[in-house]
Amino acid sequence: MPAASALPPEFHDIAKRVNNWGRWGPDDEIGTLNLITDDVVREAATTVRTGHRIPLALPLEQNGVQTGLIPGRVNPLHTMVQINQEIFGPGTVATSDDAVTFGLQAATHWDALTHISHSGRIYNGRPATTITAHGGAEFSGIDKPRHLVSRGVLLDVARAHGVDRLPGDHAVTPEDLAAAEELGGVTVRAGDIVLVRTGQVQLCLGGDKHAYGFPSPGLSIRTPEWFHARDVAAVANDTLTFEIFPPEVENLWLPVHALDLVEMGMLQGQNWNLEELSTACAEERRYAFWLSAMPEPFVGATGTPVAPVAVL
Amino acid sequence: MPAASALPPEFHDIAKRVNNWGRWGPDDEIGTLNLITDDVVREAATTVRTGHRIPLALPLEQNGVQTGLIPGRVNPLHTMVQINQEIFGPGTVATSDDAVTFGLQAATHWDALTHISHSGRIYNGRPATTITAHGGAEFSGIDKPRHLVSRGVLLDVARAHGVDRLPGDHAVTPEDLAAAEELGGVTVRAGDIVLVRTGQVQLCLGGDKHAYGFPSPGLSIRTPEWFHARDVAAVANDTLTFEIFPPEVENLWLPVHALDLVEMGMLQGQNWNLEELSTACAEERRYAFWLSAMPEPFVGATGTPVAPVAVL
Amino acid sequence: MPAASALPPEFHDIAKRVNNWGRWGPDDEIGTLNLITDDVVREAATTVRTGHRIPLALPLEQNGVQTGLIPGRVNPLHTMVQINQEIFGPGTVATSDDAVTFGLQAATHWDALTHISHSGRIYNGRPATTITAHGGAEFSGIDKPRHLVSRGVLLDVARAHGVDRLPGDHAVTPEDLAAAEELGGVTVRAGDIVLVRTGQVQLCLGGDKHAYGFPSPGLSIRTPEWFHARDVAAVANDTLTFEIFPPEVENLWLPVHALDLVEMGMLQGQNWNLEELSTACAEERRYAFWLSAMPEPFVGATGTPVAPVAVL
Amino acid sequence: MPAASALPPEFHDIAKRVNNWGRWGPDDEIGTLNLITDDVVREAATTVRTGHRIPLALPLEQNGVQTGLIPGRVNPLHTMVQINQEIFGPGTVATSDDAVTFGLQAATHWDALTHISHSGRIYNGRPATTITAHGGAEFSGIDKPRHLVSRGVLLDVARAHGVDRLPGDHAVTPEDLAAAEELGGVTVRAGDIVLVRTGQVQLCLGGDKHAYGFPSPGLSIRTPEWFHARDVAAVANDTLTFEIFPPEVENLWLPVHALDLVEMGMLQGQNWNLEELSTACAEERRYAFWLSAMPEPFVGATGTPVAPVAVL
Repeated sequence: MPAASALPPEFHDIAKRVNNWGRWGPDDEIGTLNLITDDVVREAATTVRTGHRIPLALPLEQNGVQTGLIPGRVNPLHTMVQINQEIFGPGTVATSDDAVTFGLQAATHWDALTHISHSGRIYNGRPATTITAHGGAEFSGIDKPRHLVSRGVLLDVARAHGVDRLPGDHAVTPEDLAAAEELGGVTVRAGDIVLVRTGQVQLCLGGDKHAYGFPSPGLSIRTPEWFHARDVAAVANDTLTFEIFPPEVENLWLPVHALDLVEMGMLQGQNWNLEELSTACAEERRYAFWLSAMPEPFVGATGTPVAPVAVL
Repeated sequence: MPAASALPPEFHDIAKRVNNWGRWGPDDEIGTLNLITDDVVREAATTVRTGHRIPLALPLEQNGVQTGLIPGRVNPLHTMVQINQEIFGPGTVATSDDAVTFGLQAATHWDALTHISHSGRIYNGRPATTITAHGGAEFSGIDKPRHLVSRGVLLDVARAHGVDRLPGDHAVTPEDLAAAEELGGVTVRAGDIVLVRTGQVQLCLGGDKHAYGFPSPGLSIRTPEWFHARDVAAVANDTLTFEIFPPEVENLWLPVHALDLVEMGMLQGQNWNLEELSTACAEERRYAFWLSAMPEPFVGATGTPVAPVAVL
Repeated sequence: MPAASALPPEFHDIAKRVNNWGRWGPDDEIGTLNLITDDVVREAATTVRTGHRIPLALPLEQNGVQTGLIPGRVNPLHTMVQINQEIFGPGTVATSDDAVTFGLQAATHWDALTHISHSGRIYNGRPATTITAHGGAEFSGIDKPRHLVSRGVLLDVARAHGVDRLPGDHAVTPEDLAAAEELGGVTVRAGDIVLVRTGQVQLCLGGDKHAYGFPSPGLSIRTPEWFHARDVAAVANDTLTFEIFPPEVENLWLPVHALDLVEMGMLQGQNWNLEELSTACAEERRYAFWLSAMPEPFVGATGTPVAPVAVL
Repeated sequence: MPAASALPPEFHDIAKRVNNWGRWGPDDEIGTLNLITDDVVREAATTVRTGHRIPLALPLEQNGVQTGLIPGRVNPLHTMVQINQEIFGPGTVATSDDAVTFGLQAATHWDALTHISHSGRIYNGRPATTITAHGGAEFSGIDKPRHLVSRGVLLDVARAHGVDRLPGDHAVTPEDLAAAEELGGVTVRAGDIVLVRTGQVQLCLGGDKHAYGFPSPGLSIRTPEWFHARDVAAVANDTLTFEIFPPEVENLWLPVHALDLVEMGMLQGQNWNLEELSTACAEERRYAFWLSAMPEPFVGATGTPVAPVAVL
C-alpha cells in the first residue's frame, strides 16, 4: 500500500499527463534515456563543426558548493594516501595515490530517477522501499544508464530575457523555453538533452554559496509537460535546486523533481556551469551541439558526479 | 636537488628520446592532451556512423576491483544518507541521497600525470614536492584537463594474436601494436586516444581479482617510443597495472608509468573494460570511433574515476 | 505490526525469561547499563591495587580485522589532510591533521542495543523502523550511554580449560563461566562488565584474519540467562562473532545477539584483546579490576570503536 | 637540516626551559605520559568517593563543532550501511551497521604530540619528515600511548574569576591557574591531567560555532612553564584553539601548541565540555577525581576523538 500523499490535485493532474510508466515496458529502469537512439546520436555527431570543447562541471573540492544546509551532502574531502612513495625501494619510481569522500550530489551532478519518490513509488511504479541502506537503489540506480551522449541544446533563458542572471523569484516557464529556442534558432526534439541557463551559478562562482542556493530561479511546475511533449531525454541547469525555490505553490515542495524523475522517468542535472557555453553559443550563433555527460556507475546510487563536455 | 635515482641507464636513454618537457611551454600542465586540437575533434566526430554506444567502465562498488594489495586504494563504500525522507513533512515528496568514499584509482580510471614521479621530478620538470597532503598536486592534478574527447582507436592485441586473452607474461610490444593496427585497418595518428586490449579484464569480470592483478600482460618498456613517435594523446588498457607486471627488467619497476606520465606527460588509463568494444569493432570492422572520457575534476587529485563511452 | 518471525519456540522461551523491556521505564534507552550505580562504581574503584594498566583494543588500521566478508564494514582508511603545513606562513609552527573513514564495528567495539532487531522490534519494544538512514538510531544509539566505567571481571574460559585457545566449535556455556569464576576466585555480581576470554583473538594477532572470523568459539545460547540472573551490565569477548559461529542450532542465526541486545538490553563488545590481561590476572591472581570502556558518542550510531583500559 | 624558523627569541627561551627531549630516553614517543606511574594511578583511584560519573565529550555528529574554517577537519558524516537487514533470510534476526568519515580532531579530542612540528622537528628531536601520507606519524602517533587514566584536576578559572565564561581576549595565566587551585583546594602534582575551564564551550553548546572558535580565551604562552614545573601529564580545556586566539604576541602563532607538544611532549585536549563537571565539583567541593581519557588507537594518527569520563 502506498503511503498517504499530501500532494494536491493540481500535481496529480499534471502527473497523469506526463506519466511514462510502462511506456518502455515493466522492466525499464532508465526512462526517457530510451529516447536517445542510434539515429539521435548519429545526428548529434553532425552538430560538431568547430571542434570547440567546453567543460560544464564545477571543481570537486572541499571548499565546494555545499553549505551544510542539506544534511549529509558533504563537499569532497580529498586526501592523499601516498605522496611520492618509493614503494619498491629507495631511488625507484615514486607513486602518489589519493582517496575521496563526498556526497554524490555535492557538485555538478545527475539525479538518478530514484533520487525522489512520492506516494510510496519511484519511476515505473516500483515501490520506494526497493531503496535500502544495504544496496541503495535496487532499480533505476545511477549505474543503470549504459551511456549518456546525445545532442545538447542550450536554452539560454537569461540571455533571451536580456539579463546576465534571472532574479531569485523567476520561475522558468514554457514560454521562456520557447523564447530561448527562438533566440537560439533551434527546435528541441526527441532525445535531446536540454540545458536551461538562468545565470544563477554566477553567485556560486563569485563565492556566495548561500545566495546561490536560495532563493533561486528555476523550472516552473509547468515545464514537465513541455519537456514531455517534446520527448526530451534529460534536462540540466545551473542552479542548486533545479526548480524555482521556494516553490510556486505553497507547501508543494519539489513538484518538478517528482514529475520529472518519478512520473516521466527523466534525468535531471544540477549545478552545471553554463557560463562559458553561453558565450560560445552566442559567438558561434549555434545552440545545438554534441554533449557527453556520462554518469559514474556507482552501483545503487541515487545520484552521481558528472563532468559534462559540450562540443560545438 | 633531485633525489638519487636507482633507475638504470636504459631507462634514462629512452627517457631522453620521449621527453616532452618544455614542448608546450614551461607552464604546461596537461602534456600530450595538447595534441587534441579542434581539428582532431572535428575529424573524430566524423567517425560516428552507426551511433552505437559502448560503455567502458567497470561498476563502482564495494565488491570491486581492489583486493587490498595496494595500500589505501579502497573500493567504493557507498552509503545512503537519506532514504525516502519526507524532508518537508508527512506525505510530501521524499528524497534519497547518498555519499561515497573510495580510492580515486580504485576502478576504471585515469592516472593524472602526477600519479608518478621519479628522481624527484614530475612532468615538465617540476619538483615532486609540489604534491602535498594539504592540497594534493599543485600542478598537473587531474582537474587540469578541461575536456577529454577525441578519436579513440582500439588496438586489439589479443584478437590480433588470435587469442581471447594474452598470457600473464606477455609484454605488449610495438610489433604487437602495429599488428593490431593492421588487423583494425587503422593508422594511429596525432591526438588519438589509444585503447590497447589484452583481454586480462576477463579475469576481473569472472570474479578472480587476485589473478586479474598479477601476473598481468601489459605494455612493454618499448611502447612509449612508439606512442611518442605517433604523438598519441593518451593510452588506456584493460589491466590493473597498465604495463607488464612483474616487469621485464629486474628491479626496474613501473618504467612505462615513469616514461608515459613523467617524461612524455601522457595520460594513462587502467581497468577499462574493452570486451564489448572488441566485439563491436570486429563486427563493424571499424577500430576508430568517437571517445568521451572526461576526468572528474577533483582538485589536486592524482587520479580520477572515469566512465568512458565509445561511439561507433 | 511486527514482521513475521522465523525464530523457533526455544528462542522465544529464553527471550521471555531474560526480557527487560519496561524494567527501567518505557523511556529507557540504555538497558542493563542502569545497573552500574554509584555504589557499584565506588566499589569498583577499590579493586585498584597495583595501578597496573592494560589496554584491550586492537590497533585501528587499514590492515585491520575486517576481511571484506561483512559488507560495508570497512577497515579504517586513515589519511593525512595536512602534513607539517606552515598555515601561518614560512618558518611558523607547522600542523598535521588527519581524517578517517571506517565501519564503526571494524575493530574493537561495542554493539549498540540497536545493532540488532528481531520480529520488527528493538530493545524496550520500540519499532525497528526507528532506525533510519536519515538519523540512524533515534533510540538506543551508542551516544545514549553517558558513561561506561565499572568493575570488570575476566572469566578466562580458555585458561580454566587448560588451553591457550578454545577450538572453533566450542560453545561457551554457563558451566564454563562458573568454572572460570572459580579459577579466578571471583563472583560475578550486579553491574559488572564481564570479559570472556576464548583465546580466539590470537589468530587475528597472528595475522590469519579469515581463521579468526570463522569458525569461532563464542557464547552459547544458554549464557544470556546466566548473565541475566547475575544482572551483568555488559559482556565483551575476544572474537569477531561474540557467540559461537556457525550457530549451535541450525538456521538460528545470532540468537545470543538477539537475546542480549534486544531482549535484555545488554551491551556486547567484540574483538577485545584479552591476552595481556589474561597474563596479568594470572600473575596477580586477581580477576576483578577497574574497567573504563567509554563509547565514542557518534549520534544515532549502532556501534562504536572503544579503547578499553583495565586497571588492576 | 631543520627548516629555517621564524619563531622569535622569547619562544626559544621558554622552549629551552621546558624541553623534555631525551628525558625518557632517545626512543621515547609518549613524553609526559611517562609521569603517570602505577603509584599515581593507585592514588587516583582513591579520589573516587561518590561514584558520580560525568562525561566530558561533545556529541560526534554532522552538525558538529567544525565550521569549515580549518581545511579538511570535517564533522562526522555518519551513514548506515545496513538497516534491519535480515542477512540470513526472511524472518531471521536483522542487523544494522554503520560507517563514519570525520576529521580526527573534529570534536572532543587529544592532539597527538605529532600534531605540531616547528623548525623541522617533532617531540624528542625527531625530524618532522617522519610524518608521511603513506603511514602518518611513524613516531609519537596517537596509537602510542598504551593507556590514559590518571588523577584529573579541574582548574575552574572562570569560576575563580566569578564569571560564567571568560571573555574572548582572556589569556589564562599561571596566576589564574594558581587561583583556581586555591578555589578548588587542590594542588596540582606530577602525573595529573589538568582540565582548565574557561566556559567558552557554552558558545558551542548554544549553537554559535563561529563565536566559539574565535576570538577565544585560552592558555597563555606563560603556562607551559607552570605545567612543566609541576610535571603535569596532560592538559585539556573547553575551547577550539586551546590557547588564546588570536595570539598574545603578534605573528607568534600557536606557541603553546609548540611548547606543549614539541618541546615538553605533553598531550593537549580540546573541545572538552567541562560545564557539568564544574557544577559537580562546586557542589561536592572536590576538584580532584579519577579521569579516564583513552585515545582511540588509530595507527599513525596525529589526533584522536576521545570520550573522557570523570569519576568523583
